Amino acid sequence: MAFQPSERSRALETRVREFIAGSLLPVEAELLARNHRVNGHGDWRRWQLLPELQALKAQAKAEGLWNLFLPDPKLGAGLSTLEYAPLAEAMGHSLLAPELFNCNAPDTGNMEVLYHFGNAEQQARWLTPLLSGELRSVFCMTEPEVASSDATNMAATIERDGDQLVLNGHKWWSTGLGHPDAGIAIFMGLCDPQAEKHRRHAMVLVPLDTPGVTVERMLTACGDYDAPYGHGQLRFDNVRVPAANLIKGWGEGFAIAQGRLGPGRIHHCMRCLGAAERALDLMIERGLGREAFGRPLLKLGGNLERVAEARIAIDQARLLTLQAAWKIDTQGVRAAMTDIAAIKVAAPRVLQQVVEMAIQIHGGAGLCQDHPLMGFYAQARALRLADGPDEVHLASVARLELKKRRRA
Amino acid sequence: MAFQPSERSRALETRVREFIAGSLLPVEAELLARNHRVNGHGDWRRWQLLPELQALKAQAKAEGLWNLFLPDPKLGAGLSTLEYAPLAEAMGHSLLAPELFNCNAPDTGNMEVLYHFGNAEQQARWLTPLLSGELRSVFCMTEPEVASSDATNMAATIERDGDQLVLNGHKWWSTGLGHPDAGIAIFMGLCDPQAEKHRRHAMVLVPLDTPGVTVERMLTACGDYDAPYGHGQLRFDNVRVPAANLIKGWGEGFAIAQGRLGPGRIHHCMRCLGAAERALDLMIERGLGREAFGRPLLKLGGNLERVAEARIAIDQARLLTLQAAWKIDTQGVRAAMTDIAAIKVAAPRVLQQVVEMAIQIHGGAGLCQDHPLMGFYAQARALRLADGPDEVHLASVARLELKKRRRA
Amino acid sequence: MAFQPSERSRALETRVREFIAGSLLPVEAELLARNHRVNGHGDWRRWQLLPELQALKAQAKAEGLWNLFLPDPKLGAGLSTLEYAPLAEAMGHSLLAPELFNCNAPDTGNMEVLYHFGNAEQQARWLTPLLSGELRSVFCMTEPEVASSDATNMAATIERDGDQLVLNGHKWWSTGLGHPDAGIAIFMGLCDPQAEKHRRHAMVLVPLDTPGVTVERMLTACGDYDAPYGHGQLRFDNVRVPAANLIKGWGEGFAIAQGRLGPGRIHHCMRCLGAAERALDLMIERGLGREAFGRPLLKLGGNLERVAEARIAIDQARLLTLQAAWKIDTQGVRAAMTDIAAIKVAAPRVLQQVVEMAIQIHGGAGLCQDHPLMGFYAQARALRLADGPDEVHLASVARLELKKRRRA
Amino acid sequence: MAFQPSERSRALETRVREFIAGSLLPVEAELLARNHRVNGHGDWRRWQLLPELQALKAQAKAEGLWNLFLPDPKLGAGLSTLEYAPLAEAMGHSLLAPELFNCNAPDTGNMEVLYHFGNAEQQARWLTPLLSGELRSVFCMTEPEVASSDATNMAATIERDGDQLVLNGHKWWSTGLGHPDAGIAIFMGLCDPQAEKHRRHAMVLVPLDTPGVTVERMLTACGDYDAPYGHGQLRFDNVRVPAANLIKGWGEGFAIAQGRLGPGRIHHCMRCLGAAERALDLMIERGLGREAFGRPLLKLGGNLERVAEARIAIDQARLLTLQAAWKIDTQGVRAAMTDIAAIKVAAPRVLQQVVEMAIQIHGGAGLCQDHPLMGFYAQARALRLADGPDEVHLASVARLELKKRRRA
Repeated sequence: MAFQPSERSRALETRVREFIAGSLLPVEAELLARNHRVNGHGDWRRWQLLPELQALKAQAKAEGLWNLFLPDPKLGAGLSTLEYAPLAEAMGHSLLAPELFNCNAPDTGNMEVLYHFGNAEQQARWLTPLLSGELRSVFCMTEPEVASSDATNMAATIERDGDQLVLNGHKWWSTGLGHPDAGIAIFMGLCDPQAEKHRRHAMVLVPLDTPGVTVERMLTACGDYDAPYGHGQLRFDNVRVPAANLIKGWGEGFAIAQGRLGPGRIHHCMRCLGAAERALDLMIERGLGREAFGRPLLKLGGNLERVAEARIAIDQARLLTLQAAWKIDTQGVRAAMTDIAAIKVAAPRVLQQVVEMAIQIHGGAGLCQDHPLMGFYAQARALRLADGPDEVHLASVARLELKKRRRA
Repeated sequence: MAFQPSERSRALETRVREFIAGSLLPVEAELLARNHRVNGHGDWRRWQLLPELQALKAQAKAEGLWNLFLPDPKLGAGLSTLEYAPLAEAMGHSLLAPELFNCNAPDTGNMEVLYHFGNAEQQARWLTPLLSGELRSVFCMTEPEVASSDATNMAATIERDGDQLVLNGHKWWSTGLGHPDAGIAIFMGLCDPQAEKHRRHAMVLVPLDTPGVTVERMLTACGDYDAPYGHGQLRFDNVRVPAANLIKGWGEGFAIAQGRLGPGRIHHCMRCLGAAERALDLMIERGLGREAFGRPLLKLGGNLERVAEARIAIDQARLLTLQAAWKIDTQGVRAAMTDIAAIKVAAPRVLQQVVEMAIQIHGGAGLCQDHPLMGFYAQARALRLADGPDEVHLASVARLELKKRRRA
Repeated sequence: MAFQPSERSRALETRVREFIAGSLLPVEAELLARNHRVNGHGDWRRWQLLPELQALKAQAKAEGLWNLFLPDPKLGAGLSTLEYAPLAEAMGHSLLAPELFNCNAPDTGNMEVLYHFGNAEQQARWLTPLLSGELRSVFCMTEPEVASSDATNMAATIERDGDQLVLNGHKWWSTGLGHPDAGIAIFMGLCDPQAEKHRRHAMVLVPLDTPGVTVERMLTACGDYDAPYGHGQLRFDNVRVPAANLIKGWGEGFAIAQGRLGPGRIHHCMRCLGAAERALDLMIERGLGREAFGRPLLKLGGNLERVAEARIAIDQARLLTLQAAWKIDTQGVRAAMTDIAAIKVAAPRVLQQVVEMAIQIHGGAGLCQDHPLMGFYAQARALRLADGPDEVHLASVARLELKKRRRA
Repeated sequence: MAFQPSERSRALETRVREFIAGSLLPVEAELLARNHRVNGHGDWRRWQLLPELQALKAQAKAEGLWNLFLPDPKLGAGLSTLEYAPLAEAMGHSLLAPELFNCNAPDTGNMEVLYHFGNAEQQARWLTPLLSGELRSVFCMTEPEVASSDATNMAATIERDGDQLVLNGHKWWSTGLGHPDAGIAIFMGLCDPQAEKHRRHAMVLVPLDTPGVTVERMLTACGDYDAPYGHGQLRFDNVRVPAANLIKGWGEGFAIAQGRLGPGRIHHCMRCLGAAERALDLMIERGLGREAFGRPLLKLGGNLERVAEARIAIDQARLLTLQAAWKIDTQGVRAAMTDIAAIKVAAPRVLQQVVEMAIQIHGGAGLCQDHPLMGFYAQARALRLADGPDEVHLASVARLELKKRRRA
């Protein structure tokens, strides 16, 4: 057992941290404010990319800080899940950071799907521009009419009609749909309702300009549209795509989702912990910089204990997440199921807890657009639901715990 | 000791509940959505009032459900703080409700200030149109540059210059500033910095069109502008008003604030508990109406225990708030200090806790504009800071607890 | 609605408080220590009553502070449940106090059963000596072999054989069984297993010297035997008593238990809150009286916030309990079901929370026999299980909540 | 970074686990009950060792499962702190286990002191018999009259008088003092009150039969004497020992304490986590084995979520503790200060949390002598105070957090 990161992981993490600290954080407040002014409305067709962020993205790409999540050493950085984890944490320091390195959800997950399960043609057409950063993608899974935490509730359908696939369904929380470069969706639907539970679904690639695809609206998440990304609600009405757009195979949807699952969870959780570290930074900075009743805020009441509780909670959740990454790398996603469910509960909860503390220290400032705190809150809050609510993951952990004992 | 409400309190509460349940809730979702479409942007000068809400307001006024908060039986309903409390709770069921009855913050508090401390001329000019619902008001206390939880940090100034008062300062979180009818501010500032700590401040009435008053921007609270009310940031640069605009007297700012304090806290806390009841309603409705893994969501895992925890927490916080109201009415604000501080901690916390549970049951829907839950979250979150963060009130409760024992 | 207690309640509460503060607390530490020396072993047959406590008991009786719980004005104080509640809280300040006033569990509950449901002969034989304080009683309900939280699991049996009843069963947690004066048990068992669920059980009076009654051992509760009361485990093997020992009627066991339920819960919960107040007293006293790092312990870290949290939690739980008492008195136990379940969760939880804080302030002293804190912990801990675990009561509250909405 | 244990750690852990599971657990209940019968009283001079435990101890020694904590490969197992940690966890499964392997506190810490800081003569006289298991030792640090969480409060004194040292002081919580084989104490006292804060104290070896050493009594911890170990209170009145009994040097007490600190914390915390795993085992076993309301207890309400919460909490605290051990081994205690303080808060808290859940599932059985749960509770509860209360460690974590940022 050893807790030091690999050399290449540490080296890349340092470069990512320096890039963020040196080039992004000094202008973050200004960029967030400008984005709020320019894109702070629900009319997603008018959302724009900030040129400053485009420039930073180009700079990161030029420096080779690009596609760091991809385990392939040719297309990406060739890091293991465990090695990439600290980089994801570093990117979590700012909500603006992941995209700069082409490492933002859901594109990372979608690229992984194409990388692992896409055929050469699919990769050439969609993976390549996603890797270059020209194209952006969405993932269409959750549905407004059913409790999507239970995948068997899914109502969207995929039918074969000759060499075409016909898609119908109503999807929402398709993050990134509002982005000006969004062009491709991965659509999950029922293809074989009579099959065994894990063989019923398929995933299909759907260009967003395909007839029958209608963007109904963008959803606010905790009051915010997350422009220019957005969380979209869209309808698929008899949408026809070539059968060649099927990923991996008929009935393979669940298997793909499982494969997509593990590393994505690690990324999400590590970003949460990076955000929690940032919130703790902000809390300490504010708490030392303002005074009330003759003392810095941080030295009043139980505030220093809150700093300690944050440190203890973050460090524990990080180690659990890193161990999950290590299990994925060394024993496979299946062996890591308890850990993958556990971190999904633990990491967003820690972020929410730390952000709550940080907001209290900031007073009204913590609630408003001047600080990234409410954005971090929304990140935690949304992640406690995205990809299954806490309660579903707690049920998984318990089920596996009982199963483990039955085997023993 | 007896726990049943007075007859007139119960009768009015029933009428308020029926009005809200019968006339507002059936159209609430539609009105919230329309408001989001029309006013969901930061350009507050374009914010509009929804005609449907104006109509409901006129209807409530016509039915005599108007100014119910005011203890004066001629101008209002003549209810004691304790008798009004259940009405405030009922109004808490919808964020749109309080204004319908002309019972919304900060106008209620401002009207109370004018009623208790304003002279006849001030009352004629501002209280009368506030009571009729034509005018709306703001309260300017908190400042962005200092920790406003410690009132002695306040930097805004009020100076006499002949028969004029000259105001300077930077204020924010002036709720309601964006409202099309907002016309008058109560401005709190330092008037006598050398005086005893509680005699340093004054309150002055400032028409918002006075030269030198500049609205800088509206703040988002938890991602939302709360249009068409808004939370404003504004600057007072050598703003001159007649000395007759001084309320009560030189150095009386703190005393007025204290008087404004008690009933306002009761209103805020009871509205929180009404919102918590509504969130619990929504949670149960959704939890019974959707299924996953073969059972209604509410019957999965610990969800029913969460319902029970919500019930226990709400009922306790309500009783504490009612007891605080009773103490204010029977023994005065001073005797109720522990209770007034305690409910400020307890009630928003309960709302936040219940909303969090309700969001988890709602899944993604709970995060977005389709449900009032995020609005309730923002209400709780903001109230945990407004008028002093939890931590300041905990410190007050502890200080009074120690003092009580020293006296014993 | 009004929150002041009745005059006679307040007057008696004051006398009880003064008695405890004046006569018991000054010698409490010494008496607890002596009891520990004399009775601190599991050999219950050697347990003795401390003469000092007997003397205090005689003094309380002489002063008329006796049987205060009994609503009958001739036999007791004639107080309503609500009026007695503050007296129960006052008695909660010391674990030694309730017995001094002949107001200790389970005797109070057993006396209530005999008072409400016993016939004249039963009352003459057992209620009279219980009221005079000569006799003590136990209640035999819980069984070691089954999950007793579900009363339908009960395995003990009551059979008729001519004019005799034959009892068989294994019972434990019969509190008070070790007391030198313990002489009578109320035994609950299945009498009619085929009857409707709530008509299956009966309660029977069993003198403890009846052949076939075997005391197997005393149980420790949180490490302590609670000598000289004790929590007994006992076996009933073909125990024969006259049919006249049946209380109320065949199949009436559940109905009696329900009747016994309400006031007993109020007593238990109010005693918890009295204990919590005492723990808070001790916490503040110790926290102000000792220094570390140059400041009184209470002023370090978040300790003052803990004082405030204790105050807020206690006050809320008290109001909920008083409201439950008021509902029992004015609307009956049935209408108070949610409240009776809710306080069973809330009050012991508050005591446990406050004791935990107080222990932390006391350091090692808080863990040992020198302070009543671990006794209060055990009180809370045991009460979270006695008469059903928290989880069962949460389930009741939730069930009633859903039912209420179905009715609406 | 890698999370698998070393081969020799894993091999020894397996043997320890098999020993406990095979030889101890099957008789644990019987041994605990017998110990309770034989030693369940405060008359510590009559406490006896159970022959069955002595036999198991001899068996463990014969199998080489002995002194596993000692990093010296000749005297112990030669394991690093990190390698020993999983063994300590395994021993935590039963309160009876650590002594079987001669790995119980406070002897392990005392042996480490003698090993690292004792001279040859001291080692020959005391370390050798401690290692062989013939002798047992105590540590005398905490004092009843002062807040010992602040070491500068310590009042006990060490004075030189020629070639003798004269000791005076009042100590308590000297664990193990009641053990029949207890023979030696390490006494910490003020030797140079004017010196720099960390150079004021010394540690001295004091045979317990030295004139002037008076054992006043044993303390109960959570109601239990922990016989035959006991927590002693003792007085040192002009106790004279040869100057050669000074450990390391004059003024070195603090430095020794620091050295003793790190590994001891790891042991304590890992044992806590082992106890938490056992409590979880018991909770699941009981929860599946008993039914109420037609279902196994574990499937009622939120109980399965509690299982999951326990798993998540234990796994996180374990990783934090292992990381602390790794830092101690690779970077030294000083570099591990945050982690060592953090685990002192996290691990006992997790144990307390899991035990609380397990008790609720066990009902009354969980409170009494039949189950090890209350013993685990006492372990957690005491450890939250021993060696500094949680609050002191939270303050340390916060102080280091702020310091880290000042350096950055």
